[in-house]
Amino acid sequence: MNEKRRAGGWLVKPTLLLHKARAVNNIETMQRKAERSGVHLRPHFKTHQSAEVGEWFRQAGVSAITVSSVDMAHYFAEAGWQDITVAFPVNLRQLAELDSLASRVRLNLLVESSESAARLDQGLKHKVAVWLKIDAGYQRTGLPWQAQDRINQVARIIESSPRLAFKGLLTHAGHTYNSRSPEAVTSIYQEVLVRLQTVQKGLGVQGIPATISIGDTPGCSLVDSFAGVDEIRPGNYVFYDMTQLQIGSCSETDIAVAVACPVVAKHASRGQLILYGGAVHLAKESIQLADGRTIFGGIAHLTDSGWSRLIDDCYLVSMSQEHGIVQATPELFEETEVGDLLLIIPIHSCLTVNLYSQYRLLDGQAVPIARML
Amino acid sequence: MNEKRRAGGWLVKPTLLLHKARAVNNIETMQRKAERSGVHLRPHFKTHQSAEVGEWFRQAGVSAITVSSVDMAHYFAEAGWQDITVAFPVNLRQLAELDSLASRVRLNLLVESSESAARLDQGLKHKVAVWLKIDAGYQRTGLPWQAQDRINQVARIIESSPRLAFKGLLTHAGHTYNSRSPEAVTSIYQEVLVRLQTVQKGLGVQGIPATISIGDTPGCSLVDSFAGVDEIRPGNYVFYDMTQLQIGSCSETDIAVAVACPVVAKHASRGQLILYGGAVHLAKESIQLADGRTIFGGIAHLTDSGWSRLIDDCYLVSMSQEHGIVQATPELFEETEVGDLLLIIPIHSCLTVNLYSQYRLLDGQAVPIARML
Repeated sequence: MNEKRRAGGWLVKPTLLLHKARAVNNIETMQRKAERSGVHLRPHFKTHQSAEVGEWFRQAGVSAITVSSVDMAHYFAEAGWQDITVAFPVNLRQLAELDSLASRVRLNLLVESSESAARLDQGLKHKVAVWLKIDAGYQRTGLPWQAQDRINQVARIIESSPRLAFKGLLTHAGHTYNSRSPEAVTSIYQEVLVRLQTVQKGLGVQGIPATISIGDTPGCSLVDSFAGVDEIRPGNYVFYDMTQLQIGSCSETDIAVAVACPVVAKHASRGQLILYGGAVHLAKESIQLADGRTIFGGIAHLTDSGWSRLIDDCYLVSMSQEHGIVQATPELFEETEVGDLLLIIPIHSCLTVNLYSQYRLLDGQAVPIARML
Repeated sequence: MNEKRRAGGWLVKPTLLLHKARAVNNIETMQRKAERSGVHLRPHFKTHQSAEVGEWFRQAGVSAITVSSVDMAHYFAEAGWQDITVAFPVNLRQLAELDSLASRVRLNLLVESSESAARLDQGLKHKVAVWLKIDAGYQRTGLPWQAQDRINQVARIIESSPRLAFKGLLTHAGHTYNSRSPEAVTSIYQEVLVRLQTVQKGLGVQGIPATISIGDTPGCSLVDSFAGVDEIRPGNYVFYDMTQLQIGSCSETDIAVAVACPVVAKHASRGQLILYGGAVHLAKESIQLADGRTIFGGIAHLTDSGWSRLIDDCYLVSMSQEHGIVQATPELFEETEVGDLLLIIPIHSCLTVNLYSQYRLLDGQAVPIARML
């Protein structure tokens, strides 16, 4: 049995590995960049969903966070976080839970209609801060940035409520994820910023001051300066993944999670290795390579210090519920035996992490992940 | 507030609903069909992953089960199941766990190479039954059905081991999932059966008796008689889903799970309703409609007795991590308010269920789901 296989003797089934040194480096790099720009960093914790990983952010100087659900806000409030934004259009069916949270922490919510603003005002006893969710081009949700009158109207409802404190304009420029070059990302970032500043000026004319919050990992990773922005909310950057690598938001050695998968079969006629590791271990996400191939993950070897560079021209090319199929080069096929381990570098780390109840650090130590559902 | 909204007052966030009467009916229908054919039904429990749902199978007469991992085998062994097949190519990194399981239950494993058979023989102290995993056309994994010599060779290794009892030939005809008509499914079923019977005869010539186990929900739902087959292992049929509906394996009123999602925003210019319900609540699976559109779920209304028929021409057309976007007809758009509930009928119920730690029955009662990772 060779060195690679011996190294992972404790890895007997699909296991989510977390490279702590890389994650901490990613956390610190973004923190320093935010400090240089004088922008407030409020990282999105939905990527890691772990109180223990949250502490690594706190040690780097983070004091305010973003989450995507009331349950996640509750979990991190229990872990001592006192300033939390639920970055999702406010769910009017959870007003009681939100009010309870608002009694304990500084709570920031998102509103995108007059109706939601009014229902929030009526339904809460405790004070909350409110952002207007603005659609600055992604076209998923939010008040369209061109709809200045509607924006002014909702802002005024918030301003006039004794329970709601108006924060400003918040957007998620998720369309940077369709970019496949740093230039395309920074171009979207600039366009989004100009649009938000236009809305900000429109509100200013009405005597309503507004700050600006943006938050996608490609933009926040690739832009040098955050001038004109008050707050950034990236999340994925703690781990990155194959998608971010393809966009150009990170380098290969920034990716901080991988799934260790046993090899269970070899198919010589197809040059394929069959892994114990499928949609329930990785989530069914794919990207398209420049040559048109669809892939479900990159492949690496376990090493004593983490994992190797991506193995050239070898990818997870198909997956079902528990099976992953690796299209291998002749070299990889030849050197791999049934019972060996291969590491899968995920396409979208947030969705992969969401499937697990724990990380394992490289020394085997378990780090719990909250289960929200 | 209208009737529909009042009915689901306890549903405040994305919630996995289980229609018990439908699930029990699906369980009993398959059981009766298996009994009529004189075939042994060993249902796959990876779809529901719940000891409590398992009891509904036991009440219908099921005594042996299929699972997809050692952890799942352990969970159901704890729940009292004594005859378990791990329907995945044996993972040689878990021989110790398998041996421990084999000391407690009647354990059945899958092998698809001489190497795995030999390693299994050497690595176990307790007796296990072994199936040869045969690739009868799906081309995912298994010994190719045409490779009679290799099949004979592996069967002989198993036969000659005092710890391994040779069961026969097992296949998963997963390519029925690419079918979009009952005729296409039954045609694949017949082809698969003929291929397995050819291999069975080839083994017979060598004096090696072999039984036959097949197991995909489309085939098992659509075939009238299982003549020539000894065991069937369908799993998805307990709940069915949009994929099975499109294939024709079930009718709309057989589908037994749905995810209740709050409406958080309306976008009149696009005719879209934004749901709190995305990839972390549904899993990212899609199917293509006959008109070429890609959809991520069907839409229904909550009713007092469960949920309505699928709403015509309304689908979940896009999803991100927590957002789902419904393309609504003018009628649905008009009648729906922010704060209402809509139900999503999942594309692939196994992957959706896998995201939750509990079902809720229609009366709100919680039914725990095991968490394997």
